[in-house]
Amino acid sequence: MSTEVPPSETPFVGKSVVTLDDLSRHQILELLHKAAYIDAHRREVSHTCDGRVLATLFYEPSTRTRLSFETAMLRLGGKVIGFAGAQLASVTKGESIADTIKTVSNYVDAIAIRHPKEGAALVASRAASVPVINAGDGGHMHPTQTLADLATLQSRFGRITDLTVGLCGDLTFGRTVHSLIETLCRFGNVRFVLISPDELKTPQYVIDRINATPSCSYVEVRDLVSVIGNLDVLYMTRVQKERFFNEDDYLRLRDTYILDEAKLSLAQPHMAVLHPLPRVNEIAVEVDDDPRAAYFEQVKNGMLMRMALESSVIGDELPGYVPLEPKEVQA
Amino acid sequence: MSTEVPPSETPFVGKSVVTLDDLSRHQILELLHKAAYIDAHRREVSHTCDGRVLATLFYEPSTRTRLSFETAMLRLGGKVIGFAGAQLASVTKGESIADTIKTVSNYVDAIAIRHPKEGAALVASRAASVPVINAGDGGHMHPTQTLADLATLQSRFGRITDLTVGLCGDLTFGRTVHSLIETLCRFGNVRFVLISPDELKTPQYVIDRINATPSCSYVEVRDLVSVIGNLDVLYMTRVQKERFFNEDDYLRLRDTYILDEAKLSLAQPHMAVLHPLPRVNEIAVEVDDDPRAAYFEQVKNGMLMRMALESSVIGDELPGYVPLEPKEVQA
Amino acid sequence: MSTEVPPSETPFVGKSVVTLDDLSRHQILELLHKAAYIDAHRREVSHTCDGRVLATLFYEPSTRTRLSFETAMLRLGGKVIGFAGAQLASVTKGESIADTIKTVSNYVDAIAIRHPKEGAALVASRAASVPVINAGDGGHMHPTQTLADLATLQSRFGRITDLTVGLCGDLTFGRTVHSLIETLCRFGNVRFVLISPDELKTPQYVIDRINATPSCSYVEVRDLVSVIGNLDVLYMTRVQKERFFNEDDYLRLRDTYILDEAKLSLAQPHMAVLHPLPRVNEIAVEVDDDPRAAYFEQVKNGMLMRMALESSVIGDELPGYVPLEPKEVQA
Repeated sequence: MSTEVPPSETPFVGKSVVTLDDLSRHQILELLHKAAYIDAHRREVSHTCDGRVLATLFYEPSTRTRLSFETAMLRLGGKVIGFAGAQLASVTKGESIADTIKTVSNYVDAIAIRHPKEGAALVASRAASVPVINAGDGGHMHPTQTLADLATLQSRFGRITDLTVGLCGDLTFGRTVHSLIETLCRFGNVRFVLISPDELKTPQYVIDRINATPSCSYVEVRDLVSVIGNLDVLYMTRVQKERFFNEDDYLRLRDTYILDEAKLSLAQPHMAVLHPLPRVNEIAVEVDDDPRAAYFEQVKNGMLMRMALESSVIGDELPGYVPLEPKEVQA
Repeated sequence: MSTEVPPSETPFVGKSVVTLDDLSRHQILELLHKAAYIDAHRREVSHTCDGRVLATLFYEPSTRTRLSFETAMLRLGGKVIGFAGAQLASVTKGESIADTIKTVSNYVDAIAIRHPKEGAALVASRAASVPVINAGDGGHMHPTQTLADLATLQSRFGRITDLTVGLCGDLTFGRTVHSLIETLCRFGNVRFVLISPDELKTPQYVIDRINATPSCSYVEVRDLVSVIGNLDVLYMTRVQKERFFNEDDYLRLRDTYILDEAKLSLAQPHMAVLHPLPRVNEIAVEVDDDPRAAYFEQVKNGMLMRMALESSVIGDELPGYVPLEPKEVQA
Repeated sequence: MSTEVPPSETPFVGKSVVTLDDLSRHQILELLHKAAYIDAHRREVSHTCDGRVLATLFYEPSTRTRLSFETAMLRLGGKVIGFAGAQLASVTKGESIADTIKTVSNYVDAIAIRHPKEGAALVASRAASVPVINAGDGGHMHPTQTLADLATLQSRFGRITDLTVGLCGDLTFGRTVHSLIETLCRFGNVRFVLISPDELKTPQYVIDRINATPSCSYVEVRDLVSVIGNLDVLYMTRVQKERFFNEDDYLRLRDTYILDEAKLSLAQPHMAVLHPLPRVNEIAVEVDDDPRAAYFEQVKNGMLMRMALESSVIGDELPGYVPLEPKEVQA
């Protein structure tokens, strides 16, 4: 039957998502498919999670991410409880994360957790009796950002493969770009163009990941202008002053990695500019009105992917939605 | 046709309200009419905004105002996301208000913004793709407070014209009273009695506004007791110690501007006492039980006017509501 | 008629609950009965409070309690507004609790208040025009914790009488245990076993309460191990270091009052372990998987009792629920 799940597939319902490795390729494609369906059927899906409650447990503030998780649940008809950083003191009183999670598991149908310590989301997922979604822990790894990135490629190009993807700026410390590269390698057929100063090059383990993928390749360059004309996607990141040994280096390099209309005029008309936000000055405001600017679409796609993910792990079916056929996953 | 909108009218749907000048006289009367309808049809209107989401973006805390905006949306069937001051740090990270607003525009159907900087609400309204309502920016200008004041006059007197309106206390720094005077002048036929110490008189630009309105007049007095018997409305404000050059002046004047039962006994039986709240000691608690005390009604009216405004700018019709006829606006 | 209320009964609707003395024995049993009904009919009751709004006014942070009150209202179909400690400054601006409560009474159908000052909840209940539930004030008295404790006994044993109840740890400062003892004495037929170091014995007024109840009795002991085999219920509390005069005493005594699998092996198979949470180390994590561990059930029961209480004071009937017959109260 067309909706049969391959033996390798674990079911979505009840599943915690700490890293994207917790999701199979099929599941990621299913989420992309669902996000597109949700966007086209906002009203139809607006009661999918009626009676459900999501907890947003943010042990450090991250308002943008919190509002996206919360809106996603509200737009599905569900409700939200939680806390946001400032009230942290009262949560702990020496209590372990596991105990807090066991308590909150009595209240809600799913938990989104943000925590400054690496591994906190994994600990939470083991203590919980409901699915836990990692909203960022330690080094700001958070799988739903990468899902937002993938959904933006999907909506702009109709695919997440067969693309030339430039990543520009701080490629050393930006976990966002590492996670995106690793995930694109799982699907294959991507040419990466790694654009950074020597001080902020891509770490070896990420390079190794590309090298281990026969259908993928990469080049490393210092100069955005020289390669922008070849790109389907330009993923911008922030270059933070404190990454540099001295201010002269920073000032010298900074402008090279700022995207403005002049540099953008060299790009192909179909290129998409992504950025995980917030931006400071690495994309000039004048670029916002260019049809290639996709970073506010990315925000919308983040919400749609969280809607897809939350409804999936809770186990609520989107009305009228027809699942991907397994053969489509092969495509 | 009776519901035809005059050519001068801009439509409500999608409209941002940064100041009351963004609303025509017709629109203000329509809001008053809607608020009265909502109060009489609480259950009927409780699903008007089903599926809608409001963002309350409070860059400085103002719990009273925030709870009013939020309750208004909840009572209409909608939902709320947002932040409140304490979590500010995480919102910014150097991000511009415009970027935050563009992000949040992807999540919600309307935004209420409170910000310490004058002009922030205007910047927000220009960046947003959804309507923005100013919940106070710089000097605590916020149009919905004035709408609450007007609704209280309307519900007490059935009109917002043909009234003798006393304003008492700090008339120099109280933006609330300036906004009320200016708005009443748009409708005309009000006699203002401006009651304040010399140190806290009404600014010239507000006096000019009254003088430019043929149907309005004013007198300035120092003494509340001498005029209270002539008033239909007494609008009290706080006299803050720090406005005075020395403590002796403050102590000497303070009592003159405290409303108690003794002073109230000199007023007409139909007079209404308003106050924007919070009060400190400028109205004695003993006055609360007097039928002339209207300041907690004003709180209710604030919520009703926010319900009227939120549903109007989002474009959701109140079930069963019949719009004002244009000719009624002339009256 | 079977649902007739005895003449001594005050009605639930509109009732504030500042202490458990505000509830009759009949009303407490009714709440226990309702909580069990709610647990078995989650879906049926999920629209009981449609259109209602609860305010959670937390003048000090207590995230666990706040989330329980909020979830309770959301699971009944209602909505929530409020603030949580951090935003306190903006609420007050010198405003009295009474004025804040009078303001919020215009917005909501019920208020849950948490305040550091003893008596604040009583002041609030007098100012409010809607029912107020005390969520803890001064010394952390809060009646809904005791209701959660009772519901846990009820669900484990089918009764709250005819039990041997051990209370262990800090019996001097733990208001939770005092409130539980006093409430159990109202229903009678309980044998209390008071287990504590000499430094942390039960206060005389609580002992007097037991002595004044002919059907109840107590013993005081220092050693948990010697009595654990006799208990139906073991209520653990935290032993805080700062309660002791010197660290040596603390270290010497601490282990005596830590519950681990070794000590638990001496208990009866049907014994229930309760704890108000958060725990620090007074119950070893290894105990969590023991079927006698009831402290996370207690969390669930707390939410269920708050659902029962909130719907009762607001006056919304649980669909399909049949009230207790008066004669059952006698039983």
